[in-house]
Amino acid sequence: MWQETSVLFPVLEAEFRSAELIVFSNAKNYRRDPLVPLIVPLINASHFAMVPHQRALHSPPLKKGFILTNANCSTTGVVVPLAALEKAFGPLESCMITTMQAISGAGYPGIPSLDILDNVVPYISGEEEKIEWETLKILGGIAEDDNGQKAFDMHSRHPLRISASCNRVPVIEGHTECVSVRFARRPPPSPQQVREALAAYTSDAYALGCPSAPRHTIFVHEESDRPQPRLDRDYQMGAGVSIGRVRQCRVLDIKFVVLANNVAIGAATSSILNAELAVLKGYIPSVSAE
Amino acid sequence: MWQETSVLFPVLEAEFRSAELIVFSNAKNYRRDPLVPLIVPLINASHFAMVPHQRALHSPPLKKGFILTNANCSTTGVVVPLAALEKAFGPLESCMITTMQAISGAGYPGIPSLDILDNVVPYISGEEEKIEWETLKILGGIAEDDNGQKAFDMHSRHPLRISASCNRVPVIEGHTECVSVRFARRPPPSPQQVREALAAYTSDAYALGCPSAPRHTIFVHEESDRPQPRLDRDYQMGAGVSIGRVRQCRVLDIKFVVLANNVAIGAATSSILNAELAVLKGYIPSVSAE
Amino acid sequence: MWQETSVLFPVLEAEFRSAELIVFSNAKNYRRDPLVPLIVPLINASHFAMVPHQRALHSPPLKKGFILTNANCSTTGVVVPLAALEKAFGPLESCMITTMQAISGAGYPGIPSLDILDNVVPYISGEEEKIEWETLKILGGIAEDDNGQKAFDMHSRHPLRISASCNRVPVIEGHTECVSVRFARRPPPSPQQVREALAAYTSDAYALGCPSAPRHTIFVHEESDRPQPRLDRDYQMGAGVSIGRVRQCRVLDIKFVVLANNVAIGAATSSILNAELAVLKGYIPSVSAE
Amino acid sequence: MWQETSVLFPVLEAEFRSAELIVFSNAKNYRRDPLVPLIVPLINASHFAMVPHQRALHSPPLKKGFILTNANCSTTGVVVPLAALEKAFGPLESCMITTMQAISGAGYPGIPSLDILDNVVPYISGEEEKIEWETLKILGGIAEDDNGQKAFDMHSRHPLRISASCNRVPVIEGHTECVSVRFARRPPPSPQQVREALAAYTSDAYALGCPSAPRHTIFVHEESDRPQPRLDRDYQMGAGVSIGRVRQCRVLDIKFVVLANNVAIGAATSSILNAELAVLKGYIPSVSAE
Repeated sequence: MWQETSVLFPVLEAEFRSAELIVFSNAKNYRRDPLVPLIVPLINASHFAMVPHQRALHSPPLKKGFILTNANCSTTGVVVPLAALEKAFGPLESCMITTMQAISGAGYPGIPSLDILDNVVPYISGEEEKIEWETLKILGGIAEDDNGQKAFDMHSRHPLRISASCNRVPVIEGHTECVSVRFARRPPPSPQQVREALAAYTSDAYALGCPSAPRHTIFVHEESDRPQPRLDRDYQMGAGVSIGRVRQCRVLDIKFVVLANNVAIGAATSSILNAELAVLKGYIPSVSAE
Repeated sequence: MWQETSVLFPVLEAEFRSAELIVFSNAKNYRRDPLVPLIVPLINASHFAMVPHQRALHSPPLKKGFILTNANCSTTGVVVPLAALEKAFGPLESCMITTMQAISGAGYPGIPSLDILDNVVPYISGEEEKIEWETLKILGGIAEDDNGQKAFDMHSRHPLRISASCNRVPVIEGHTECVSVRFARRPPPSPQQVREALAAYTSDAYALGCPSAPRHTIFVHEESDRPQPRLDRDYQMGAGVSIGRVRQCRVLDIKFVVLANNVAIGAATSSILNAELAVLKGYIPSVSAE
Repeated sequence: MWQETSVLFPVLEAEFRSAELIVFSNAKNYRRDPLVPLIVPLINASHFAMVPHQRALHSPPLKKGFILTNANCSTTGVVVPLAALEKAFGPLESCMITTMQAISGAGYPGIPSLDILDNVVPYISGEEEKIEWETLKILGGIAEDDNGQKAFDMHSRHPLRISASCNRVPVIEGHTECVSVRFARRPPPSPQQVREALAAYTSDAYALGCPSAPRHTIFVHEESDRPQPRLDRDYQMGAGVSIGRVRQCRVLDIKFVVLANNVAIGAATSSILNAELAVLKGYIPSVSAE
Repeated sequence: MWQETSVLFPVLEAEFRSAELIVFSNAKNYRRDPLVPLIVPLINASHFAMVPHQRALHSPPLKKGFILTNANCSTTGVVVPLAALEKAFGPLESCMITTMQAISGAGYPGIPSLDILDNVVPYISGEEEKIEWETLKILGGIAEDDNGQKAFDMHSRHPLRISASCNRVPVIEGHTECVSVRFARRPPPSPQQVREALAAYTSDAYALGCPSAPRHTIFVHEESDRPQPRLDRDYQMGAGVSIGRVRQCRVLDIKFVVLANNVAIGAATSSILNAELAVLKGYIPSVSAE
C-alpha cells in the first residue's frame, strides 16, 4: 500500500472511528484536521496527546476510536532532520527543499513510462503544498484556543518559512531531497556540529522499544556522493533516513542531501510504527487485557 | 565535443594564441584567467572588450591571437535568466540552485550505467564551485586595477550570493535546474512580471545577427509541468534556454525551473556563437579582406 | 498517431469507405479481411491489385472508396528483410523472431513506468500472433477462389513457418528484432550474399517516386554492435529499416538483427507512403482532374 | 564479485592449485581445459568425477589441489532447463537462444550509461561463443581417449546444435533469455509435460543438502508475463532459475522464457555451491578431520 489512497477512504475512515476502531492512515484526508495528529513516528510521537481531545470532541464522545495520520512521503524525509536540528540548535528560520522523487510515489499505474524514461518532470501536483503545510503541523506544538479546546498550534509557534520544488525522476524507490536551512540562532552551528547532532538523534519510537523502529533514526554518510537511492534505500529496511553532504550554504546556513524510502518510512512503515507507538503508549488496550 | 576537454589542451591553447590564432574554448583551463573573457553568448557579449587588454598584456603583444572561453554547461543554463532578471529588475541579492544534470555532461565513457540506472547521484565533482564562481565572472563587469590595467571586477560589483547543489540523474541530454532568487529591490517583481521580462529578453547575439543564435533566447512555458528535458531540449536546436513554473518562493522571492541543452548551448553551440560574435564585432578579420 | 487505434474506429472506417472515401488505416481492424490489402509500402505495393475486387464486392459496388491497412509495428520491421531475401534467394522455409520492443509501441499512457524501468516484460498481448499471421498475408500472393473471386492466398503459396517471441524493453522508440531464417534453397546463401542482397533491395515506393520513401530501404551495418535503437532509429527519418550482424546460424541458416522505427515506418509513415503509392498508381484521382 | 575476473587470475589459479589449494573459479580461464570440470551446480555435479584425473595428470601429481570452474552467467541460465529437459525427454537436437542481459553482467565500470540508457546493444563480445561452447561441455559426458586418459567428451555424445544471439538491455540485474528447443524424440512432449518436468526437476546440490541450494531448482511461472528480471531475480536469493511462457514453437518444438540472476547463480552463488558440493562429496577434507 505505497500510494496515498485518499480518494477511496475518507468516509470509511470516519465510520471506522465512530465504531470505536482505531485508524492509522497513510491517506491525506485527515492530515489537516486540527484534531487529528499527523505523526512522523521518528519525531513527533508527543502528538499522541491530541488523541483524548479528538475522542472527547467526537459526537458522541469515543472511548477507544480515533484517527491518526502519517505524513506524505516527501514530507517525511525532510521533516526528520529538521526536527533533529531544532532539538539540537533551536528554531529554524527558513528551509529550501528540492526533491527528486521516485516513480513509486505515484502509485500504480502511476507515471506512464513515456513520461519519465530519459526525463525529469519538474512538477508533482499538490506535493509542494503538502510539504510546506504538513511540515509546520508536524514541527508545531499543541495549544489551547479561546474556548479552552486544544488544537494544533502551527502559526504562533512555527514561523518557519519553507519553500519546496518537487520533481519526478526515473528512480523506482527512494526520494532524494536537497535541503538548505537557516537557523534563528546566530552564529549557526558548523557542518560538523550538524553532522554530530543528526547522527546522535534518537527517535522516541526506538527509545520506547517499537519493534519496527530503526536503530539509526538518521544515518549520516561521510562519502561525498551519498546517499543514493539505489544504494541506500533499503538500509534498515527503509525505516530510517539517510543524510549526506552536510556543508555550508552561501545563501542560508547549512545544506545537505536527504534520502528516505517513500514506500517504507514514507508510507506504511510509518503507519506500523504509529500503531506500535499506540500500543506502547497505552492508546490501544493490550490484547491480553481484553 | 560535448565534454570539457580541459585536461588535454591548456598548453595547446596557449601555443595557438601565441601563434596569433584565435581560440574559442569550451574547456575550463582559462575560465578563471582575469584577462580571458568567459562569455555566455546569449548574455555577456560585452566582455569581448577584454580582448585588446589580453592581446596587449601578452608577451610579446599580439595582433590577432586571443583566447576566449565559454562557461560550464550547468552555469550556462542558470546564468541566462539571472542576467535577464538583472537587466529588467536590477541586482540580485542571492540565488539557490539545485541541478538535475544529464549523463552526457560527463562525456564518454563518463558515468558507468551501474551508477546511474534507477538512481540519482547527489554529487558532481567541482560542479558546484564552477557554478558559484563562473556566474559571478559572467555577471560581473570590467574595471581598472591600481596599475591602470583592466581586468574582470567581480567582487566590487557583484555581491550576489550563490549556493548550488548538483545532482546527476538518468537523463541523456538536458540539464534541469530549480532556481530561486532574491532581488535587492523591494518589493520584488511579481511572477507575471518575471515571466514577461524573461520572454522579452533578446540576446546581443541574435540582435547582431549571429546565424546560430536562437530567436527566443528564453522560451517561457505556461504549462505547469514544463520544461522537461526529453520534450524541450531540442527546441531551437538546443541553442536557447527554456523556463517554466515561475512562481513565488516563500524563502527568497521568485523560483522557477530552467532547462538548457548541455551538449548544445551548454557546450559547442556557445563556442560557435562566440566565434560568430567575434566576426560580427570585428575581432576576426573577414576572410575576403585578407 | 503512433498506437493502434483499433478499438475506436472499425465502424468509422467502414462508413468512410461506404461514403466513397479512401481509408489508409494503421489500425488492426481490417488487416485480416480477405479483401483488404495489408501493405508494407517498402515491399508489397503489388497488393493494391486487390482494390478493384474490394470495390466490386462491396454492396453497393464502389467507384472510389476502399480501405487499405498497413501492418503492425513489429511485423513491419521483420517483413522487409524477409521479402528482400525471398526476392533474391527464393522462398524461406522457416523464421525465428525475438523482439525487443519500445514502450512507444503501446501508445499513451501505455506501459506504467513501474512495470518497465530496470525491467523486461517478456510478453505483449496479441503481438506474437500478429507477427505470425500478418507476415504470411504480406508475403503471400493473390489467387482466385472456387467462385472466381479473388482473395489473398496465403496458405497454398506461403508455407513459411514463423515463430515469434515478443518482449517489451525500456527503450522509447525503435523495435529491435533478432531474426533467424532458413531458406528452401540448398545450399543457402552466405552471410556476404545476404548482406549484398539486403543492401541492394529497392522498394517500389522509392522506384515509383514516393516523396516519403527512403533512399535505402534497408541500411546494412558493418559494425559488430549495430543497429541500436537510440543511434539508428532516426536515420532517414525512420522510414527505412536497419540491419546488422548478418552471420551464420547453427540451427537455421542465417541470423541478423533488424531495427525499425515503430512510430515512423512501423506506423504513420507507412500509411503516408501507402497514400503516396495510391496517388502514383492512380487509385486516387488527382485533385487537378476533379 | 559479479564479473568475470579472467584477465587477472590465470597464473594465480594455477599456482594455487600447485600449492595443493582448491580453486573454485568464476573466471573463464580454465573453462575449456579438458581436465577442468565446468560445473553448473544445479545440474552437472557428476563432473566432479574429473577431479582425480586432473590431480593425477598434474606434474607433480596432486593430493588435494584442483581447479573447478562454473559457467558464464548467460550459459548458466539456459543450461539448467536444457539439462532438465534432457533428463525427462531424452536428447535435444537444436536450441535457439536470444538473451537480454543485464548491465551488471559486464562488471564495473562496465557499460557506459550513454551506451545503454534508452537503448539495446545487440552484441556482447564473445558471449554467443561462450553459450554455444560451454553448454556442450556442461551437458556432455566423460569419456576415455585413445591413451586411456579420461576427458570431457563433447562431440561424440552431444550433437546439440545451439545458436545464441546476445543483447544488452538497460536492466541492472537478471538475464532474460528466450529459448526454443527441438527434441530428438518424435512426437515431442507437450507444453504441459514440459512445465511439469521443469517444475519437478531437483538438483543434486539440493538433494545432497548444500546449504545454499534453492528448494526450487526451476520455478515455473503460470502468469503470461513472467518471469521479469525486476520482480523475480531475488526469488530464493537468486539461487534458482525462473521459467515462464512455456508454449509451442512453430519452427522448433517448444519455446519458453528463462530468467537467471547473473550476479547470484550466474556467478558467485555457483562457486559457493560448487564448494559446498566439494565438501559433501568428500573432495575437501572436513576441517574437523584435519
